[in-house]
Amino acid sequence: MPFSTHLDRHQSRYVAELMEFIAIPSVSADPTHQGDMVRAADWVAARLTAAGLEHARVIPTKGHPVVLADWLHAGADKPTVLIYGHFDVQPPEPLEAWTSPPFAPEVRGGRIYGRGASDDKGGLMTPILACEALLAQGPLPVNVKFFVEGEEEIGSPSIPDAVQSLAPELAADMIFSADGLQWRPDQPQILEALKGIVKLELVVRGPRADQHSGLYGGGIANPAMALAQILASMKATDGTITVAGFYDDVIHLTDEDRAAIARIPYDEAAWLAETGAPATAGEPGYTTRERLWARPTLDVNGLTSGWQGAGSKTVLPAEARAKITCRLVAAQTPEGVAARLTEHLCAHTPPGVTAELQVIPGGSDPLLIPRGHNAAALAETILAEVYGKTPYRTRVGGSIPILSTFRDVLGLHTVVLGFSHDDENLHAPDEFFRLEAFRKGQEVYGRLLQRLGGQA
Amino acid sequence: MPFSTHLDRHQSRYVAELMEFIAIPSVSADPTHQGDMVRAADWVAARLTAAGLEHARVIPTKGHPVVLADWLHAGADKPTVLIYGHFDVQPPEPLEAWTSPPFAPEVRGGRIYGRGASDDKGGLMTPILACEALLAQGPLPVNVKFFVEGEEEIGSPSIPDAVQSLAPELAADMIFSADGLQWRPDQPQILEALKGIVKLELVVRGPRADQHSGLYGGGIANPAMALAQILASMKATDGTITVAGFYDDVIHLTDEDRAAIARIPYDEAAWLAETGAPATAGEPGYTTRERLWARPTLDVNGLTSGWQGAGSKTVLPAEARAKITCRLVAAQTPEGVAARLTEHLCAHTPPGVTAELQVIPGGSDPLLIPRGHNAAALAETILAEVYGKTPYRTRVGGSIPILSTFRDVLGLHTVVLGFSHDDENLHAPDEFFRLEAFRKGQEVYGRLLQRLGGQA
Repeated sequence: MPFSTHLDRHQSRYVAELMEFIAIPSVSADPTHQGDMVRAADWVAARLTAAGLEHARVIPTKGHPVVLADWLHAGADKPTVLIYGHFDVQPPEPLEAWTSPPFAPEVRGGRIYGRGASDDKGGLMTPILACEALLAQGPLPVNVKFFVEGEEEIGSPSIPDAVQSLAPELAADMIFSADGLQWRPDQPQILEALKGIVKLELVVRGPRADQHSGLYGGGIANPAMALAQILASMKATDGTITVAGFYDDVIHLTDEDRAAIARIPYDEAAWLAETGAPATAGEPGYTTRERLWARPTLDVNGLTSGWQGAGSKTVLPAEARAKITCRLVAAQTPEGVAARLTEHLCAHTPPGVTAELQVIPGGSDPLLIPRGHNAAALAETILAEVYGKTPYRTRVGGSIPILSTFRDVLGLHTVVLGFSHDDENLHAPDEFFRLEAFRKGQEVYGRLLQRLGGQA
Repeated sequence: MPFSTHLDRHQSRYVAELMEFIAIPSVSADPTHQGDMVRAADWVAARLTAAGLEHARVIPTKGHPVVLADWLHAGADKPTVLIYGHFDVQPPEPLEAWTSPPFAPEVRGGRIYGRGASDDKGGLMTPILACEALLAQGPLPVNVKFFVEGEEEIGSPSIPDAVQSLAPELAADMIFSADGLQWRPDQPQILEALKGIVKLELVVRGPRADQHSGLYGGGIANPAMALAQILASMKATDGTITVAGFYDDVIHLTDEDRAAIARIPYDEAAWLAETGAPATAGEPGYTTRERLWARPTLDVNGLTSGWQGAGSKTVLPAEARAKITCRLVAAQTPEGVAARLTEHLCAHTPPGVTAELQVIPGGSDPLLIPRGHNAAALAETILAEVYGKTPYRTRVGGSIPILSTFRDVLGLHTVVLGFSHDDENLHAPDEFFRLEAFRKGQEVYGRLLQRLGGQA
């Protein structure tokens, strides 16, 4: 019996199990759900074991536990595949906005509603069920490891340390993330690149304390104005970043890249209307989507100085601060960009003030999955088979820190292979997951493991 | 008997009366002292009457009362002199820092200590006592009016309306302010100019709400960066204001003005050390003191946008705001400078944002007492006689709103003729007034009124 038939036969049980999983309110942000976090981890370990995976174990971290399991009998000539997902969910509030309670899941119109249905309990189940269906037929075609965390929705604070200390047990030839999106229910995608990030604070100092602007203005420099002058020196009004060397390490878009991006439908007017901004704006020579997906940015996230209340206070402020983040593209690095900005600052600090650029922890490298990356190419092929359409090659302007951790610690690019969609209220009331996508995800993972093992 | 002899004979009583006046805690900022404000106003009215002034009356305003009195029997061929002072004082806190209690005044080492001794109860007494001494000899040489307010320390919010409605009763040929400073106890000054001010808020808006800097950065403009670019477009890093037309109405310093300023000793290193700023800075081609006293400024008083807490938050802010004040010199006007800045903004708003410049109420015109202004020239002569030294011609970077009100409503420049010194802890614990200055002030006002009446 093909694994697919097994999946079809058991689908209603799988949906029931997913509902059971959703019913555990594993809200990682809420300390009162501490017990539920452990229950959810135990549930995952038990489900992995029931699927036929081995050594399923719940491992404590400084925060919420992680769950590991494996099946390593495919032989040394077969690849080892690491699969990632998470069992924690976003807080369900506001509760009154839900049609059915967030932790009493309900199926309506081919969708399963409940907190975590889409992000990421439904997603996490797909590779587990694929393994179960394959194991029902015989040995797995490849060696498989699972790594499931419970802190994704709170920024995974304990996970880099956990991955570091578990590195030998997580060693693999490739990684797939079961937490991720498809473009539309009828259109698959392969995520090719994510931006990295470097976070900085610019501090400009002048007099020891705020001074009277009438008695000191014109005599000493104004740190708030100096801050503005420094920031303005970093970016032209047309959006070009004017920091020397900033673009040096950028792997520029090829004509093929640009064609791939242009192929993807994009309603720019709708996107703009959603933001409420008066116009799109940014670096000349690139489309909006190219800038969003594949060009580095320099954004001011916050400004603070002097008097911020109502009306006027005639101070010449002692200090002015700006929070800055640069989103990075391959092969920029947080360290390299911070160094370029620091050099720029030294050359552009106006007279009469001192200025300092502090790096805020939490930077990450950009990720660009190389063309021809085996696992990504295979995922692309299988998505094309299952959906009957060539996947879009997409990029994202945001960062997924766990992917940087995997790359840094395990030395591997992760292929994001999830089956959620961005209309599924992922962090909002009435979160849902499409049952059709649930089934498709199982199918894709089943075929993927077969193909990786040289079968079919 | 010359009025001077009268002053000498009664000096110890005058000091005792000043102590009685100081003992009334007329703190205008503190509503619990409402009753003391009325007591102080009544005390002033009674003292004016006792000196021989007529029609002394306490007149309510929307805030604290004002006191008026006059003596108008010198004849229509003699000038009418309006004298200004204030009976309210700064809050005394921190109380524990006072050597003797703020409202239990004490004479130590030729100084009278207590809140308001210098600012402005001692000052206000000097012309009253001069009138008393002159009236003891016969009629006053000129017509005299007093206008004494109780809101100076809180920015005189009710006074413009009060001056407006009392305008016919305040009509005069010249105005002297008994609230003011001499350069040093042995060096007189005549204040030639004060700067005006215009207060503005610059608001830059982009998206409807803060956006995720990863998902929107590079696609739409960043209002905080746009704000920085707009501010930086207004001022070169060398301190020159680059707003077209900003300097158009400035009456530039003549060589004589610059020589007068250069004549006044100035320890720039000490001044700078007091601020704690790393260096002086500002418009090229002018000395620091010329910039402080006689050149217009554009200062940013505050900045606010996006995330201002610890660490980083990856937002692209919806809005950014800057508080701006320009200090103005003659013949700039708040309206004219606001118009130049608004025109500049229209021409320098970067793409992708909207920007607006709002005028905050509380602007005032600069004041420049014309050379050859009769009252100022005479005050200068008498100061030179009494001190035995030519007064410095000084200017101030700050603004005194009551002087603008007088000029606008009564059409007169005020000659600032006070006898405090900037080392007398005017708004701090252990405020004191020099008894020698108290006596000198009485002398100056006595001679001034005589000379204005064509006597001596």
